[in-house]
Amino acid sequence: MDFKNLMDKQIQLIDRSLDQVLPKEKDYQDIIFESMRYSVFAGGKRLRPILMLAACEFVGGHEKDVLPFCCAIEMIHTYSLIHDDLPAMDNDDFRRGKPTNHKVYGEGIAVLAGDGLLNYAYEIMLKSLLQDAGDPKRKIQAMEEIARAAGIYGMIGGQVVDLASENKQIDGDALDYIHNHKTAALIVAAIRAGAIIGGADDQALNRLTEYGKCIGLGFQITDDLLDILGDEKKLGKKVGSDIENHKSTYPSIHGIDQSIAKVQELFHKSLAALQGYDNKSAFFVNLADYLVKREY
Amino acid sequence: MDFKNLMDKQIQLIDRSLDQVLPKEKDYQDIIFESMRYSVFAGGKRLRPILMLAACEFVGGHEKDVLPFCCAIEMIHTYSLIHDDLPAMDNDDFRRGKPTNHKVYGEGIAVLAGDGLLNYAYEIMLKSLLQDAGDPKRKIQAMEEIARAAGIYGMIGGQVVDLASENKQIDGDALDYIHNHKTAALIVAAIRAGAIIGGADDQALNRLTEYGKCIGLGFQITDDLLDILGDEKKLGKKVGSDIENHKSTYPSIHGIDQSIAKVQELFHKSLAALQGYDNKSAFFVNLADYLVKREY
Repeated sequence: MDFKNLMDKQIQLIDRSLDQVLPKEKDYQDIIFESMRYSVFAGGKRLRPILMLAACEFVGGHEKDVLPFCCAIEMIHTYSLIHDDLPAMDNDDFRRGKPTNHKVYGEGIAVLAGDGLLNYAYEIMLKSLLQDAGDPKRKIQAMEEIARAAGIYGMIGGQVVDLASENKQIDGDALDYIHNHKTAALIVAAIRAGAIIGGADDQALNRLTEYGKCIGLGFQITDDLLDILGDEKKLGKKVGSDIENHKSTYPSIHGIDQSIAKVQELFHKSLAALQGYDNKSAFFVNLADYLVKREY
Repeated sequence: MDFKNLMDKQIQLIDRSLDQVLPKEKDYQDIIFESMRYSVFAGGKRLRPILMLAACEFVGGHEKDVLPFCCAIEMIHTYSLIHDDLPAMDNDDFRRGKPTNHKVYGEGIAVLAGDGLLNYAYEIMLKSLLQDAGDPKRKIQAMEEIARAAGIYGMIGGQVVDLASENKQIDGDALDYIHNHKTAALIVAAIRAGAIIGGADDQALNRLTEYGKCIGLGFQITDDLLDILGDEKKLGKKVGSDIENHKSTYPSIHGIDQSIAKVQELFHKSLAALQGYDNKSAFFVNLADYLVKREY
């Protein structure tokens, strides 16, 4: 199967799983079910769950063990976008070509939909732990990786510094902190959690972690570049918003040429991390290539 | 030791544990540490962790096993207050006599401080699971109880209906849904989680659950009554805000006299639930009495 077909197949698998676990029944509080589903099914790339699934299979693990965790990490990612789009944060009206959650459901429900997705992610993972008759140790470890990467020492930490840096000149170190925590941490955790659930040995876990760090940072620098060089139609949102919001980005600090060179360097480092696993690294190699070349 | 001294001792124990687990080091993101601590140490009654601790000890469990979960549930409670006070929700400027989180740190940081506390609660519980060499099954079950009660089928569900009911006439059933989910669910989960970690048998767990449901609902009706009959100085916030916000409450639907009678009925039912455990139920009996008579 070629890479594009394989990606589509994996996206469909993740979407079906998300559809199964996200509630949709009628009840007093059903507006939040609708609001959570609205953002989860607003056309995400499913990068984190796909990486988790691939890492699990890379080390010989089984799809069924990791799928609840794939859903959980996509819910955590989606909650962070809903809260990030709020007027008090980035104040974005559109994402992926659709009105943001608070534009459709109001700010109050958007706050609660984010809270609901974050909390439900843990409910899903805990249910998977309780249903599993085997030793829960690996799944607990995977949960802990995800939780730390999502929290105040990971993604939320990055968002705090990002928010505090608006309209301010920051240096390269502060920007590295933002990029590594706001974006890369959860991408790395997705890969590590998948590998841990799949039963990875230390060497495979370390190599996959290195790969994840490279593509995580590369992904965010590409995002920064697309906000300058991208096509609004393909992106589904306005370009130039970082400049408009006086936001420091990789290109604004290091220049466009050096940013492009950095993405290339990270791409090659990500491939080097998986050398020696040549017979099963094809998907990761193609994914890194796709992430570097993406236009949205 | 008399009840008041015992309560003070337990509050100090919880406060010390919270102080130990909540970060305070200097780092890029340290404003969120400060913001989280501001609300956690703003003078809460510590009702949920105290109930959890008491339930654990009631069934013969050990303090050290349950303390991380006590901290976690207080963080979850605090996050819900921070988000509930936001302008998009209840829009409250004061809580317990102090400016609310977003009045001090701004709305963006307040959203993130709430997110941070919710996520950190799970980090704390997971760390406790990983450090425990014994069978993790009871702690996983306790976590699942807490997660469900905090989520879209518990507290968040109640908040959604509460928010959707503003400026609307709702019936007694809808109000029961709000009270049982927004407030009672997490109180019941605190007791159940403590009992499960302590190794409760089915009978003790059922009796404690019944006790928790009674005081949980009684607690919220008392809150509704205090917003009409309370003393602003003792409460540390304005009274009359429910009427001002056109919010349906137990007294607004059933009248003040019937509300007071309902609290008394729930108080007696809570005591009846623990009959047969007379030699160790003194703390719970005193606590129910204290909750009924409280003035803040």
